Amino acid sequence: MFDAAVAAAAPATALPPCLPRPPKGRTVVVGAGKASAAMAAAVEAHWPGELSGLVVTRYGHAVPTRRIEIAEAAHPVPDAAGENAAARILALVEGLGPDDLVLALVSGGASALLALPAPGITLAEKQAVTRALLKSGASISEMNCVRKHLSRVKGGRLAAAAAPARVVALLISDVPGDDPSVIGSGPTVPDPTTVEDARAVLAKYGIAAPAALSETPKRLANSEVVMVATPQRSLQAAAGVARAHGFTPLLLGDALEGEAREAAKVMAGIARSCAAHGHPARPPCVLLSGGETTVTVRGKGRGGRNAEFLLALAIALEGHSKIHALAADTDGIDGSEDNAGALIGPDTLARGPDAKARLADNDAYGFFSALGDLVVTGPTLTNVNDFRAILVT
Amino acid sequence: MFDAAVAAAAPATALPPCLPRPPKGRTVVVGAGKASAAMAAAVEAHWPGELSGLVVTRYGHAVPTRRIEIAEAAHPVPDAAGENAAARILALVEGLGPDDLVLALVSGGASALLALPAPGITLAEKQAVTRALLKSGASISEMNCVRKHLSRVKGGRLAAAAAPARVVALLISDVPGDDPSVIGSGPTVPDPTTVEDARAVLAKYGIAAPAALSETPKRLANSEVVMVATPQRSLQAAAGVARAHGFTPLLLGDALEGEAREAAKVMAGIARSCAAHGHPARPPCVLLSGGETTVTVRGKGRGGRNAEFLLALAIALEGHSKIHALAADTDGIDGSEDNAGALIGPDTLARGPDAKARLADNDAYGFFSALGDLVVTGPTLTNVNDFRAILVT
Repeated sequence: MFDAAVAAAAPATALPPCLPRPPKGRTVVVGAGKASAAMAAAVEAHWPGELSGLVVTRYGHAVPTRRIEIAEAAHPVPDAAGENAAARILALVEGLGPDDLVLALVSGGASALLALPAPGITLAEKQAVTRALLKSGASISEMNCVRKHLSRVKGGRLAAAAAPARVVALLISDVPGDDPSVIGSGPTVPDPTTVEDARAVLAKYGIAAPAALSETPKRLANSEVVMVATPQRSLQAAAGVARAHGFTPLLLGDALEGEAREAAKVMAGIARSCAAHGHPARPPCVLLSGGETTVTVRGKGRGGRNAEFLLALAIALEGHSKIHALAADTDGIDGSEDNAGALIGPDTLARGPDAKARLADNDAYGFFSALGDLVVTGPTLTNVNDFRAILVT
Repeated sequence: MFDAAVAAAAPATALPPCLPRPPKGRTVVVGAGKASAAMAAAVEAHWPGELSGLVVTRYGHAVPTRRIEIAEAAHPVPDAAGENAAARILALVEGLGPDDLVLALVSGGASALLALPAPGITLAEKQAVTRALLKSGASISEMNCVRKHLSRVKGGRLAAAAAPARVVALLISDVPGDDPSVIGSGPTVPDPTTVEDARAVLAKYGIAAPAALSETPKRLANSEVVMVATPQRSLQAAAGVARAHGFTPLLLGDALEGEAREAAKVMAGIARSCAAHGHPARPPCVLLSGGETTVTVRGKGRGGRNAEFLLALAIALEGHSKIHALAADTDGIDGSEDNAGALIGPDTLARGPDAKARLADNDAYGFFSALGDLVVTGPTLTNVNDFRAILVT
């Protein structure tokens, strides 16, 4: 099921059917994100006409290409390489004509990889505002509202710069709701928020507003978006595998959030209910979910949110004889370790008797590594967020 | 739906169909728990023959009875009134004959209300062991294993004391799994754990074992149990109301746990998925769940776990136009306030703009009280744990 979820989001298979027809004029490929290099390679392999361009991806996520240049930059904290790539991408799309086409390849991480301050704003000023917002308790949508008005790329500005060329954005979503204006901060998508909205957010949290806040495009007649891959489609692909093997799939949600160890207790309760009562699904069944849990680090151990979720799940299930589970990041990297995720079964606690101590130390990686129960894939070069499957037999 | 859930667990309606036939000999009613007085009243109202007895309930939970005496005692920390009642209850059932019947009315809270140390153990000794276990990180089942071997009542000892009389326990469950040996620590139910198990738990956590640990009954031929009410049956009653109004009910689980504000994020994700994708249920639908979340108190506000769950749910839903919810304790008391729970709707955040600050201060009661959105029932005199309904239209 995990393999099917990742395959459904892989640019090599998911992107080609989404390509538009070649234009009369030139085709310029730009883009950013963890999947952008793999997306560029998929475009190259299937595009019938001439092609050039530049995409920026995270360090270590480049793949060989012949016609589209791949730049690498830092994520999640932007660096000069990303700024430089963003400036070159803007230059590439400026001056195109109405017969030209821009293919914008946008995936998770694009926001940090394409961080270029708007004219009149210094990088230091932008960073100061961002840090103040992070401390303030502002919501993600409030933060994004402000950031779009500080950027030369976000909030539709990339598409505005490319006009009158046609812009087709090919998106891989890793955000709740799959909102195109949120994925990578929507570089090709009209932004409904205004400078006044941004000022109101800054005033609400008592943060000084930079003088040079600038308005984002409200309409972009030259721009359209195509969704290449979403968390929900990957869950549906996994559901197909489940059905083929006689398991009833239940899709609980493509954007579940919450502290990993607490979300695990809720999921344990749902899985136990399946086993005890046949609700919300009758065994044999599998509970599928996506989204991104969080981990509040208090200990000194290693491990990403999927491994921590599973360790807490194993503890909550107390060796339940009918329940197995897998949780992994579809990008192949659970946090900052070398694993995508891990696996648990009824014997996990018996084989790893120090589970509670390891969880208290945030050492889920150490726990599953010692058991040989890590799931290791390496970077998958796509990202539709986390994948969790809880099997009840 | 909440009314139906409570009604399905009300002793007045749920208990009479569970009563056995009167015996040839005497009938003695004993029992303990938050619902025990209401259960005693229901027995009195429907019992065809002679009857006497004593039950102990929480302070403020007594109801008028004529033949069964009601004692009140402290919960959750035992007091002398509870010890005294437990001793009198044991005395009532000792010396009965094979033609006599003991009706044992057991509901949540019975464990604390019937706290009587085994011979050779002082109350101070028992309290010291309990405190050490609470600090040790021992699981609930490990704690209960030890406590049953320190008690004169728990772990089947009440039924053993009543032999050769027949014992029929009428149970209202507030525990995950509805295990009769766990509800009120199973005073009439054989205990699978041994003195050796109890010693092993104490050794595992480095706690000195009292000399007088005593063995619990492993078989009780004179004892049987009847389940009067369970969380799942109450959820099913609510599901019936939902169906009658055209809403598809999805029973997520009768024993969901986890930190209230984190469980709320998971539930918000599931509800959003219903609205966006029609999975795990297609709107109009309602997500029903039971069990008991927890609240780690960090602020200075007021509020129980259901109000806190709802406040966090409202924040996570960001005013979603299609989602309403209710969460309340079926016993009518959410934590230590005067409300059973509260209600949220799409306009909750707009009407209460200080939601995040109130949540940070654990002041969900203050938040919903100011809005006039508390659910107030007073003590319901039953308890099948929490009830949550999230409606997606």
